[in-house]
Amino acid sequence: MKSQNDIGRQQRAGIVGGGSGAFIGAVHRMAVQLDGEATLIAGALSSNARIARSSAAAWNLERSYDSYLAMAHEEARRDDGIDFVIIAAPNNLHYAVARAFLEAGIHVVCEKPLAISIEEAENLVALVEHSKLLFAVTYNYSGYPAVRQAQEMVRTGALGNLRKVHVEYQQDWLMSALESTGNRQASWRTDPAQAGVGGSVGDIGSHAAHLAEYVTGRRIISLCADLSRFVPGRRLDDDASMLLRFEAGIRGTLSCSQIACGEENNLSLRVYGERAGLEWRQQEPNTLIYKPAGKPWELLRTGQKYLGAAATAATRLPAGHPEGYLEAFAVIYGDFIADLHRLRRGVAPQRNYPTVHDGLRGLRFITEAVESSERGAQWVEL
Amino acid sequence: MKSQNDIGRQQRAGIVGGGSGAFIGAVHRMAVQLDGEATLIAGALSSNARIARSSAAAWNLERSYDSYLAMAHEEARRDDGIDFVIIAAPNNLHYAVARAFLEAGIHVVCEKPLAISIEEAENLVALVEHSKLLFAVTYNYSGYPAVRQAQEMVRTGALGNLRKVHVEYQQDWLMSALESTGNRQASWRTDPAQAGVGGSVGDIGSHAAHLAEYVTGRRIISLCADLSRFVPGRRLDDDASMLLRFEAGIRGTLSCSQIACGEENNLSLRVYGERAGLEWRQQEPNTLIYKPAGKPWELLRTGQKYLGAAATAATRLPAGHPEGYLEAFAVIYGDFIADLHRLRRGVAPQRNYPTVHDGLRGLRFITEAVESSERGAQWVEL
Amino acid sequence: MKSQNDIGRQQRAGIVGGGSGAFIGAVHRMAVQLDGEATLIAGALSSNARIARSSAAAWNLERSYDSYLAMAHEEARRDDGIDFVIIAAPNNLHYAVARAFLEAGIHVVCEKPLAISIEEAENLVALVEHSKLLFAVTYNYSGYPAVRQAQEMVRTGALGNLRKVHVEYQQDWLMSALESTGNRQASWRTDPAQAGVGGSVGDIGSHAAHLAEYVTGRRIISLCADLSRFVPGRRLDDDASMLLRFEAGIRGTLSCSQIACGEENNLSLRVYGERAGLEWRQQEPNTLIYKPAGKPWELLRTGQKYLGAAATAATRLPAGHPEGYLEAFAVIYGDFIADLHRLRRGVAPQRNYPTVHDGLRGLRFITEAVESSERGAQWVEL
Amino acid sequence: MKSQNDIGRQQRAGIVGGGSGAFIGAVHRMAVQLDGEATLIAGALSSNARIARSSAAAWNLERSYDSYLAMAHEEARRDDGIDFVIIAAPNNLHYAVARAFLEAGIHVVCEKPLAISIEEAENLVALVEHSKLLFAVTYNYSGYPAVRQAQEMVRTGALGNLRKVHVEYQQDWLMSALESTGNRQASWRTDPAQAGVGGSVGDIGSHAAHLAEYVTGRRIISLCADLSRFVPGRRLDDDASMLLRFEAGIRGTLSCSQIACGEENNLSLRVYGERAGLEWRQQEPNTLIYKPAGKPWELLRTGQKYLGAAATAATRLPAGHPEGYLEAFAVIYGDFIADLHRLRRGVAPQRNYPTVHDGLRGLRFITEAVESSERGAQWVEL
Repeated sequence: MKSQNDIGRQQRAGIVGGGSGAFIGAVHRMAVQLDGEATLIAGALSSNARIARSSAAAWNLERSYDSYLAMAHEEARRDDGIDFVIIAAPNNLHYAVARAFLEAGIHVVCEKPLAISIEEAENLVALVEHSKLLFAVTYNYSGYPAVRQAQEMVRTGALGNLRKVHVEYQQDWLMSALESTGNRQASWRTDPAQAGVGGSVGDIGSHAAHLAEYVTGRRIISLCADLSRFVPGRRLDDDASMLLRFEAGIRGTLSCSQIACGEENNLSLRVYGERAGLEWRQQEPNTLIYKPAGKPWELLRTGQKYLGAAATAATRLPAGHPEGYLEAFAVIYGDFIADLHRLRRGVAPQRNYPTVHDGLRGLRFITEAVESSERGAQWVEL
Repeated sequence: MKSQNDIGRQQRAGIVGGGSGAFIGAVHRMAVQLDGEATLIAGALSSNARIARSSAAAWNLERSYDSYLAMAHEEARRDDGIDFVIIAAPNNLHYAVARAFLEAGIHVVCEKPLAISIEEAENLVALVEHSKLLFAVTYNYSGYPAVRQAQEMVRTGALGNLRKVHVEYQQDWLMSALESTGNRQASWRTDPAQAGVGGSVGDIGSHAAHLAEYVTGRRIISLCADLSRFVPGRRLDDDASMLLRFEAGIRGTLSCSQIACGEENNLSLRVYGERAGLEWRQQEPNTLIYKPAGKPWELLRTGQKYLGAAATAATRLPAGHPEGYLEAFAVIYGDFIADLHRLRRGVAPQRNYPTVHDGLRGLRFITEAVESSERGAQWVEL
Repeated sequence: MKSQNDIGRQQRAGIVGGGSGAFIGAVHRMAVQLDGEATLIAGALSSNARIARSSAAAWNLERSYDSYLAMAHEEARRDDGIDFVIIAAPNNLHYAVARAFLEAGIHVVCEKPLAISIEEAENLVALVEHSKLLFAVTYNYSGYPAVRQAQEMVRTGALGNLRKVHVEYQQDWLMSALESTGNRQASWRTDPAQAGVGGSVGDIGSHAAHLAEYVTGRRIISLCADLSRFVPGRRLDDDASMLLRFEAGIRGTLSCSQIACGEENNLSLRVYGERAGLEWRQQEPNTLIYKPAGKPWELLRTGQKYLGAAATAATRLPAGHPEGYLEAFAVIYGDFIADLHRLRRGVAPQRNYPTVHDGLRGLRFITEAVESSERGAQWVEL
Repeated sequence: MKSQNDIGRQQRAGIVGGGSGAFIGAVHRMAVQLDGEATLIAGALSSNARIARSSAAAWNLERSYDSYLAMAHEEARRDDGIDFVIIAAPNNLHYAVARAFLEAGIHVVCEKPLAISIEEAENLVALVEHSKLLFAVTYNYSGYPAVRQAQEMVRTGALGNLRKVHVEYQQDWLMSALESTGNRQASWRTDPAQAGVGGSVGDIGSHAAHLAEYVTGRRIISLCADLSRFVPGRRLDDDASMLLRFEAGIRGTLSCSQIACGEENNLSLRVYGERAGLEWRQQEPNTLIYKPAGKPWELLRTGQKYLGAAATAATRLPAGHPEGYLEAFAVIYGDFIADLHRLRRGVAPQRNYPTVHDGLRGLRFITEAVESSERGAQWVEL
């Protein structure tokens, strides 16, 4: 356990997975360190010991481990051990790794999806609830200032009662059989053993579902999903379309695709209420379009003083100085680290980031979407 | 019957419905006359005789009728009778009016939807097929040059095999109970007796479905539709979301709404194939976004020489001189009038516009969408 | 002279120039007839008699003339003579043609620039002032609803005192020596004898200057212009940049180019005041961006009820149904024809369109811009 | 002097200025550390000793100084002294601080403008040239991948010979007398004693000029500048418009403003050549618009494989994951640090970032722009 005089110092972070070649590992490293509130000092960066060590050296990590179990054990034991671990390994390892660190008394930031089954996810929820540990799941898009502004506007009634939601996440990087070319990212993400039951639904559809629920403050209660495998030989879905029904009578659609030719990382959300609509597009993330009834559309811009407290707290730069993906990711880390400080001060954590409960919810979404599709695109409850 | 020496002269058009206060009547009038190929000379502009006459006077029509039956009879009889009639009356009148003019031997341009039931639509198909008459249905969005370019690119293989289609049509003009304020447009469009079984699905969803089938060249073979009535007291759907399956394994979604707060007339289409994607938005209609795999997006612009023959034939102005809704509408008329000239010359018509068959197809779409929703948003065949 | 019982009937228009191959002639024809308020019935369509006749036949004109003088004489004499003439001939003919019709007592709509010298322009001003005739100059971009909205907002103080103006007009159609390929448009526009002293400055720069003065309600009082001829062998400027000073201390820039590779017809205006800014782009003309201090940008859209009276009067279609170049052009005609009706009713004309005075102002702009550049890009008074 | 076994380790950075309340200090801190290649360990963060210490504590700096002279002396002496210093103090201090560190043998990264007079700037050039020290000036916008792509495309001939350049930098943060409210940023930037002779011209105009010269590879050889002070009482220009002439016959315009109501940080560049045009806008920095003659515009996107080596080297994330202002700033640091490593390895530095020579060039631009305006907006040589 860390001493009380740790208050205010930089936090020490470790990472499992994310070594050389893994896009998301580098993202976590830059994001966690962006604000100077934490330093990445330890890692079990790969199940391949050679890669683990060379990656750790390239990143100037103080301590490199060949095994996450050894890491959890040793870091828990040290006086200068890590304050929290980042889990950036393939999906099938999330559960075991998270469990190991939770059992060692170490806080966790875990990539989504939380696990590869509802059972695993429920177990993690139970573990967290029976501990005093913090657990974040990096549904990172909720870290964008404009998304937080949207959430605040919905919550405070600017849209009135909601009626309709459209959320989409379009990519094309799996539009051909990239997994058969040796590409590591593609290989594990299209392999049911490593990725779980969802392909595009798990990788990006769960982001879309989280974004929709986060901004609306309403849960999806049932869905009808039509999943496809367009690329010959692919074992998991690479495209999906869904009809959604939310609490409070809200209707909607969700589309996600990894075969949408020409699309990069096109996550977008539109919400329509009785008094106004909102639209946000991740690829130009600093603008939130507000559509009040009978009035002109307004372009709300991050960094402007007219935004609410939530967006302002998530912004580093003046308006017109674009912030992007890393900055939003770092907002999640900033809120997580703020909770670490609160815990030490004996203050209740605010959990202003996606938690293990959101992680479980994501698993339900993935599982039920697959279930719906397998039953012939029939409605299922969530 | 018109004499042979009519060849090349301006065509004489008549109109039924569309009098004062009816948006679409003025559109037809401007569109049919835009290119100087036809003149509107006769009309039965309203079932209200006073409105009919004052509207006809305001438009400088040569002949005004109080009844479409009288008009059909008289115009067929005259040497200088109309060459074709435009039907812009509420949906429930389309069938009777179209039938009257077809039986009088007069060509027809009819607003969509073609009729209010599949039976009526099938009867019209039969009537047209047993005549030598031309029959256009104004799915006018297919008159945009960029839409024709899209259709040509799909047809000639620029996208490879298609995989996914998203089509949407978002409006907000019925987001409150406008029909209870005396607004004529809203009143008949939300009244099952006048509009038919579809609300938003009939008024705009059928445009979206036509656009998707037109551009892809593939038919929707089944759909799963979730229709809503968000405005209290409304008798027809004002919002709908659908999952679509097309021929050749294409999947897709269709959304239409008249309660999407802040949306004006936001019809958009995205098509994704194995080699490229395409995107078009009606509100900025002169740009077609082409998304070839692994290459930059290209902004294809109407009026540019690099476009294909179909788009070029539908364009009047050099690039950068925006053409809009009326111009696209006039393209439909231009192609219809070109067929009138072909007929007179004894040449086979090309029917380069939506026909009575497209009208029937629209009725099937509307009917099945309603059917799907009433069965609990279950899949139905089209 | 036309009889008094002409009130309310369609106006009869004639045209000089604009025959086959001339883009702008077809524009005038479609625009003048768009609203059904006027019909084009007579023309002297080309100085080439054969082209004049074939063009007149193609357009179904009732009367074709080989000479504009004959046309002015004959039309003035006839009971059913034209009410006004449209001058769409090359610039060097504007003066003589306008004079002929004014002297025949016929109202005039003239293409810009009004003439090829300040002297000619001043003569026309004098002729018009000593008559009771109407004279419009087709600075057509001021017919766009969004431009009229901008003008109204400036006039009614929404921007406070103005500070800065940027106006641009970028094209690329003369980026190579098109005039040496036989292209008629390019030939006369790059020939000082036919086009006058200005190349890009006359053809498009004068549009830009008019737009800036129209919207701001302030005159350019001095300018410093740097004109270029980038294409080898070209005799008139094909590109220009200017510093501007307006009345009331407003500063600005004007750029026009016909060699800006990739640009179509990119006219744009930005105005900045003490309380707000405005931005408009001709290629997406239905949106006006309003930038109030300290608040979000608003997208004002034509057809919306929140717009002012001027924009509303210039709009035919509901919001979201794009209107374009022809529609804006037709707004100029509509206002001109409304004045014809006022004259007949003995009501004072409103001259809600660019007049012969604006035409003269354009000549001053062109002449002084050329003068400034020839003196080494020194400041000149306007 | 640092030992040879420093090769490969994280670099140690110090900073002068940029303490609490200074936007740009926080930017440098995040940017220099983003890639994990350097750590900020020492600082003289403010001339106010209390602020200096509290800011250093807030940033967890190892060593805080009350004076930059003490810092230069001490850091040069220590074995673990800083490898380079960042100068983020007001402009009038740049020269003295830079000189102190250069004389202490410490590499420098200096904010722009390099100094407040050409003389100071020339002295720094001489100092650097007579040392083996690296000197970067943070014209940070040249760190954007899309800007580097533009530079590469111009350099390799994709545009052919250039003809026209438009560069702008529009802001509104000084549209009222913010300097009289106690705002520190506004106070020193509008004070000639601290900012130098240029207001908007120095603060943002010099960025615009650098960007234009960087991308085109051509120097501005003369300019005609019209500077304004719109806000009553302001002592330096808050707005400027210029005509530019570059080497090789290129013409252009430059506008910069800090009173352009509604503009945030709107830096944009358009370049037109004989074969293509390019357009880039800082507020959506991940897109570069390429406008090849006679072909559709292409949207080049950062992170895509079709981009050149320069852009790729400056990109951290896959396409569609937006990078922004901090990331571009960090690219400058990355290239600077790479040169530090080269120096240690005995390899010639590549100076792939703005150097002291660019800094001097910036001073010439500012000085001549002011000179031109004071002479009545006459042409001056650069």
